[in-house]
Amino acid sequence: MKLYDTKQAPNPRRVRIFLAEKGIEVPLVPVDLASAQNRQPEFLKKNPMGQVPVLELDDGTLIAETVAISRYFEQQKPEPPLMGVDPLDRVVVEMWQRRMEFKLWTNVGSAFRNTHAFFKGRIEQVPEYGEVCRKAAIDALPWLDAELAGREFIAGARYTIADITALVSLDFGRVLGIKIPPELGNLSRWYAAVSSRPSAGA
Amino acid sequence: MKLYDTKQAPNPRRVRIFLAEKGIEVPLVPVDLASAQNRQPEFLKKNPMGQVPVLELDDGTLIAETVAISRYFEQQKPEPPLMGVDPLDRVVVEMWQRRMEFKLWTNVGSAFRNTHAFFKGRIEQVPEYGEVCRKAAIDALPWLDAELAGREFIAGARYTIADITALVSLDFGRVLGIKIPPELGNLSRWYAAVSSRPSAGA
Repeated sequence: MKLYDTKQAPNPRRVRIFLAEKGIEVPLVPVDLASAQNRQPEFLKKNPMGQVPVLELDDGTLIAETVAISRYFEQQKPEPPLMGVDPLDRVVVEMWQRRMEFKLWTNVGSAFRNTHAFFKGRIEQVPEYGEVCRKAAIDALPWLDAELAGREFIAGARYTIADITALVSLDFGRVLGIKIPPELGNLSRWYAAVSSRPSAGA
Repeated sequence: MKLYDTKQAPNPRRVRIFLAEKGIEVPLVPVDLASAQNRQPEFLKKNPMGQVPVLELDDGTLIAETVAISRYFEQQKPEPPLMGVDPLDRVVVEMWQRRMEFKLWTNVGSAFRNTHAFFKGRIEQVPEYGEVCRKAAIDALPWLDAELAGREFIAGARYTIADITALVSLDFGRVLGIKIPPELGNLSRWYAAVSSRPSAGA
């Protein structure tokens, strides 16, 4: 088994944190995005989307998409559960994981793609849309702060994949000037807690 | 149990098709998006995102997000399986479901939101970005056609949630002038097959 990985993009970090929480070690194969290695024919055979991460199983099966890869490991090694502890909790975690994707992850990612120099010439950028997304991510923070008033983690009393998505979104958002305002006490408390877990260094 | 629903948006149709394939009937509660009923305080208590569909269980538990609602029913009534038949297949289906979301669903949805009169004054529209997304959805069609050369459905030999996401994306895309070119024979064959299932009328 091997995981095609890069430190140059945030999606692979979501998987590395997930693996660190599970205590699973997988050999990493670095893919260099700066030289567009992910757009070369050899890599496109692994994932026609040209994206990392990609998990390659020993029988050659290729699994792309961060959440699908995460679910593979959740099934292989259920403890500690990061995607729910019972059928209803699995659904609640999925709801929150998707809310974090739509409110934070997608907005931060679209802001980066549409405004950052890295994507100049790689995609058709629309900076005005990037700014709309940057504001939308910032606007989501007070809402998330209020949600966290009643519970320790985003999907409830346990650390889950929803926390990983939110943490990586906010860390990545710093390059766009997105910061948690100190007056958002619940969100600041949550961020300090998830950032101090050893997995955050993954 | 009840499902907050509307015919005015495509996400609820994804759940209705899922339920029709499962043979599950759930009482529907219509939510009128035209009069912004989804933005009223009463509905925001059901889903702070202001979006349909939302599933309300008999004990008052509220589940939002189309794929989370779908997973609830997949767990409640596994047959016929729409999210995978075994652990590895579940991961493969999730990969394809997400690819359909990123390549078709998100692009069609962003094109609609950023260009259509319905969203004028409701959100900050960036028509230039909408056009980028419309083109991206159209550009994905030959790729999907090639993928379908070797198999009957999007995630393999069985109809799954990935087919539902792709079907609803393409039907919704018609309002933006997105059509399957007749020379894309595999995609046309797939589209005819999934459209002729009774569930497509849901």
